[in-house]
Amino acid sequence: MYSVKELQRIITDEVKKRSGALLEQNPVELYSPINYSLEMGGKRLRPVLLLLAYNMFSEDVSAVVPAALGIEVFHNFTLLHDDIMDKADVRRNRPTVHVKYSENAAILSGDAMAFQSYKYLVECKSPRLVDAIELFTNTAIEVCEGQQFDMDFENRLDVKEEEYLEMIRLKTAVLLACSLKAGAILANASDEVANQLYDFGINLGLSFQLQDDLLDTFGDQATFGKKIGGDILANKKTFLLINALEKGLAEQKTELLSWINRTDFKPDEKIAAVTEIYFKVGVKRLAEEKVDAYFNKAIKILDEINLQDVVKQPLRQLAAEMLIRKH
Amino acid sequence: MYSVKELQRIITDEVKKRSGALLEQNPVELYSPINYSLEMGGKRLRPVLLLLAYNMFSEDVSAVVPAALGIEVFHNFTLLHDDIMDKADVRRNRPTVHVKYSENAAILSGDAMAFQSYKYLVECKSPRLVDAIELFTNTAIEVCEGQQFDMDFENRLDVKEEEYLEMIRLKTAVLLACSLKAGAILANASDEVANQLYDFGINLGLSFQLQDDLLDTFGDQATFGKKIGGDILANKKTFLLINALEKGLAEQKTELLSWINRTDFKPDEKIAAVTEIYFKVGVKRLAEEKVDAYFNKAIKILDEINLQDVVKQPLRQLAAEMLIRKH
Repeated sequence: MYSVKELQRIITDEVKKRSGALLEQNPVELYSPINYSLEMGGKRLRPVLLLLAYNMFSEDVSAVVPAALGIEVFHNFTLLHDDIMDKADVRRNRPTVHVKYSENAAILSGDAMAFQSYKYLVECKSPRLVDAIELFTNTAIEVCEGQQFDMDFENRLDVKEEEYLEMIRLKTAVLLACSLKAGAILANASDEVANQLYDFGINLGLSFQLQDDLLDTFGDQATFGKKIGGDILANKKTFLLINALEKGLAEQKTELLSWINRTDFKPDEKIAAVTEIYFKVGVKRLAEEKVDAYFNKAIKILDEINLQDVVKQPLRQLAAEMLIRKH
Repeated sequence: MYSVKELQRIITDEVKKRSGALLEQNPVELYSPINYSLEMGGKRLRPVLLLLAYNMFSEDVSAVVPAALGIEVFHNFTLLHDDIMDKADVRRNRPTVHVKYSENAAILSGDAMAFQSYKYLVECKSPRLVDAIELFTNTAIEVCEGQQFDMDFENRLDVKEEEYLEMIRLKTAVLLACSLKAGAILANASDEVANQLYDFGINLGLSFQLQDDLLDTFGDQATFGKKIGGDILANKKTFLLINALEKGLAEQKTELLSWINRTDFKPDEKIAAVTEIYFKVGVKRLAEEKVDAYFNKAIKILDEINLQDVVKQPLRQLAAEMLIRKH
C-alpha cells in the first residue's frame, strides 16, 4: 500500500515529466499554453484519488499512472475553458491562459488538452479500458452540463437549493467520484465496490464544494489562497445566498437584493454587509451542518465497503484532510 | 454492398434522429447550440467514408453507425470552435453558433460535442474499439495542431509550400483518412489494408483541400456556396498565394505585397487584381496539377489494395464526386 504522500509525489513527478515532454512538440503555440496550465500546480487531488482507489485492489499503481494523468489534464482543461467563460484573470496567483497568451490560444489549447486526456487514458492497457473510457466520457459531459447550469444561474434570482446541489454535483462531485470509480474499474474491482466508491466520491465532493463556498466568505485569506468575498461580489448563487434569500426575514431579503442590484459600491462594504446578513439568517451554521452531513454520509459509505480497514485507511485520511475545517 | 447514396441517407437520418434526441436533454442552453450545429447540414462526407470502408469488409453497417456519427459530431465541433477563432459570422448561409447564441455557449457546447463524439464512438461494441479510439484521439490532436499552424500562418509572409501542405494534411486530410481507417479497424481488416485506406484518404484529402483553395478564387459562387475571393481578402496563405510570392517576378511580388498590406481598398478590386496576378504567374495551373497529382496518387493506392474491384467501386465513385472540377 502506498501512502497519500507517496501517491502525490508519483503524480506530481509524472505531470512534470509529461508536461515537459509536451513542450518539445510542435506547434509550440499550441503546446506552450498546455504546459503552462499543467505546471500551475494544484493539489492533484483527482489523480491521487484514482491511484488510491486502484491501490485498494492492486499494488502495481504504475500501470494506471497514465489514466490518473489523463484525469488531471481533463481537470485543468475545464479550469482553462471556465476561466475564459468566467472572464477570470488570475488563477493560483498567476495570469490565466487567455490573459497570458490569447483567447484563441486558450480555446484551442484547451481543446487539445481534452483530447490529450484521452491519449493518456488509452495508454493504460487494461482489459477494462473501454469501461473506464465510457465512465470518463459520461463524466466529462456532466461536467459541461454543470458549468452550463452555473452560468445559467448568473441570470437568475430564484435558484432553489436542490438545483444548486445538482449543479455542484455535476460541476465538481462527479469528477471526484469518476476518479475513484475509474481506479476501481481499472483494477477490475466488482461493480458493487466500484459503485460504492463512486457514491463515496459524490458525497465527499458535495461536502468539499460546500466547504469551499463557506471558505470563500468566512475563510482565512492566507490559507484559502483566494481573496475572501469573491462569491459575494460576483452575486454567485451559492448555498449561502440561496438560503439567505429563502430563509431571511423580509427586510433582510430586501437588503440582500439591494446589494445584488447595486452597481456602485465599495467592495469591502458589500462583503461586510452581506456577510453580516448571512450570520443573522444563520446560513453559516446551515452550510456547516450540510458540509458535515455529506462528509458523514461519505464516511458511512466507506465504512460499508467490504474491504479490510487498513486498505481503506489512506482514502479515509485524504478525505479528512480535504475537509479539515478552515473556518 | 451499399451505394454511396444509401449510406448518405443512413447517416443523414441518424444525425437527424440523434440531434433531435439531444434537444430533449438539460440544460437546454448547452444542447440547443449542439442541435443547431448538427442540423446545419453539410455533405456528411466523413461518416460516409467510415461506413464505405467498413462496408468493404462487412455488410452489417448499422453496427458502426454510432462511430460514423461520432466522427461527424467531432467534425462539427471543429467547425464550431474554428468559427469563434476565425471570427466567422456565417456558415452555410446561417449565423454561426457564437453569433446566434454567445461566445460562451459556443465554447461550452463545442466542448460537450467533443465528448459527445466519444460517447457515440463507445457505443460500438467492437473488439477493436480501443484501437479505433486511439486512432481517433491521435487524429483529433493533429486537427488541433493543423488549426494552430493555420492561425500561425496569418502573421507570416514566409510560409513555404511544404509547411502549407503539412498544415492542410493535419487540418483536413487526417480526419478523412482516420474515417476510412476507423471503418477498416472496426471491421477487423488487416493492418495493411487499413493503412492503405489511410494513405488513400490523406492523398484524397490533400487533393480535396487544394481544389477548395482553387474554388475559393476561381470557382463559381452558385456551386461553391461561399463568396468567391474570401481567401484573397483575408490574405490567407494558400497554395496560390505562397507560390505566387515565391515564383512571381519582382514587380508581381511587390504588387501582391502592396495589396496584402493595404487596409483601405475596394474588395472587388483587390480580388480582381490578385486573381490577375495568379493567372500571370501561372499558379492556377500549378494548383490544378497538384490537385490531379494527389488525386491520381490516391487512386493508385486504391488500385493496389488487394480486394475485388466491385468492393472498391463505391469509394472510387465518392472520390471522383469529391474531385469533380468545378473550375
